[in-house]
Amino acid sequence: MGQIMNVEALNAFLSAEFPQVAGRYVVETVEPDLLVMRLQVSHAHLRPGGTVSGPTMFELADLAIYCAILARIGPVALAVTTNATIDFMRKPAAGGDLTAHCRILKLGRVLAVADVLLYSEGQDEPVARCSMTYSIPPKS
Amino acid sequence: MGQIMNVEALNAFLSAEFPQVAGRYVVETVEPDLLVMRLQVSHAHLRPGGTVSGPTMFELADLAIYCAILARIGPVALAVTTNATIDFMRKPAAGGDLTAHCRILKLGRVLAVADVLLYSEGQDEPVARCSMTYSIPPKS
Amino acid sequence: MGQIMNVEALNAFLSAEFPQVAGRYVVETVEPDLLVMRLQVSHAHLRPGGTVSGPTMFELADLAIYCAILARIGPVALAVTTNATIDFMRKPAAGGDLTAHCRILKLGRVLAVADVLLYSEGQDEPVARCSMTYSIPPKS
Amino acid sequence: MGQIMNVEALNAFLSAEFPQVAGRYVVETVEPDLLVMRLQVSHAHLRPGGTVSGPTMFELADLAIYCAILARIGPVALAVTTNATIDFMRKPAAGGDLTAHCRILKLGRVLAVADVLLYSEGQDEPVARCSMTYSIPPKS
Repeated sequence: MGQIMNVEALNAFLSAEFPQVAGRYVVETVEPDLLVMRLQVSHAHLRPGGTVSGPTMFELADLAIYCAILARIGPVALAVTTNATIDFMRKPAAGGDLTAHCRILKLGRVLAVADVLLYSEGQDEPVARCSMTYSIPPKS
Repeated sequence: MGQIMNVEALNAFLSAEFPQVAGRYVVETVEPDLLVMRLQVSHAHLRPGGTVSGPTMFELADLAIYCAILARIGPVALAVTTNATIDFMRKPAAGGDLTAHCRILKLGRVLAVADVLLYSEGQDEPVARCSMTYSIPPKS
Repeated sequence: MGQIMNVEALNAFLSAEFPQVAGRYVVETVEPDLLVMRLQVSHAHLRPGGTVSGPTMFELADLAIYCAILARIGPVALAVTTNATIDFMRKPAAGGDLTAHCRILKLGRVLAVADVLLYSEGQDEPVARCSMTYSIPPKS
Repeated sequence: MGQIMNVEALNAFLSAEFPQVAGRYVVETVEPDLLVMRLQVSHAHLRPGGTVSGPTMFELADLAIYCAILARIGPVALAVTTNATIDFMRKPAAGGDLTAHCRILKLGRVLAVADVLLYSEGQDEPVARCSMTYSIPPKS
């Protein structure tokens, strides 16, 4: 399936719809089988022990999948996450950016499934793995 | 198993260890089979369409489970989430507080498993369901 | 919501639609907030170490949730599982029956969410926890 | 990390430890980043509507991950699944074999995490996605 939104269109959409997080989450790559999103990590995301917080990693995975879906179907703001599973596997480097590498596994009429690997700058192995289901609203 | 930390001790721990979120997340009840935590919802948690964001619900579930474990084993700051699954089932009421109702299903030597139902003020049915596994560090 | 199928109707449906497993899985209780299904454990379900196999526990949870949904909406054979998460928490007693205690958390127009605790005969604590999402086919 | 068991050793292990399923599940490929296991589908695996049953897909994913771990750490029969999440995305072709493509994402001292895509013969898109956590027993 082709792409309807490119990197610039997705980042513009994020800025407009999610002003609270805009600037922190940036789409870097959109290809048919891969979307890469970067989170610029700041002190606000850190948990005891110096790691990035779980909710922040969840948010990065969620936004990456959301953008990967929008790249295919266009700016449908009301697509919603119905299920998410995340495995936290390694401690991210304190202070390093995180990147999410997302692929869509299914894009159906009402449900989409995607998974994500999260990487911490300077580490070869992924720090987390996540899969989510999105519900896609019917076209009106 | 008995409880080592009560409501006051847990809230004091949250304030000390998570100053960034302190005050927003409050432990209201700690019983052998139930911990209740409240999130005072503010504009910062809202997503397009007026719902509380998924990452915020994730954070509430995560902190509720964390506190339920600490209530049993004491203030071990380095217990970490290794796996989380969340089902978003209904749209929370915009502006209403959320409460997490948590029960521990297993508290082993190295792993703990718990689940949570999230409720939105004024709605009878849960808005989300979550289960998590925590890894508990060995006693040194 | 009321119940459309009772214990007898559900067991008759299982026998007709799942002849390969009929007799092993038996619905014991159907109440508004609880369905109980029993698996009579035999040698065929055992794994190395004497425990019941994971796939068998998965099947028990899956059938229990399926029956809990059918109890509410009637014998819709084509409802299908779209997502399942299971936590294996304790080793079941070798040779003991397993029971699944299921509650439906959401029964929407297109998706249903339920969770299950699995118990092994003679043990107080649950051996596994499972949640699933079912897709419900549109009425024709 | 190197491999300790190859295709022949893994299939011999399956035959010895899982005589009930031996012959149906066959390891076809073992590489550093990929294990492929095939399920020869028979009538016993079918559900209403002609699809392979969910528990059968679960078993295939579970055994593939188990073998991928054993390939790295050797024949440790007591490694056990602690958590599994599976997304059923498409209907497999009735009667066609299934293959599981597994990669290990983390192989720690006590926990391993892996994910799997399941394919149905003759279909390009995966029919299911699964991730699991295994607990690895301490060396005695």
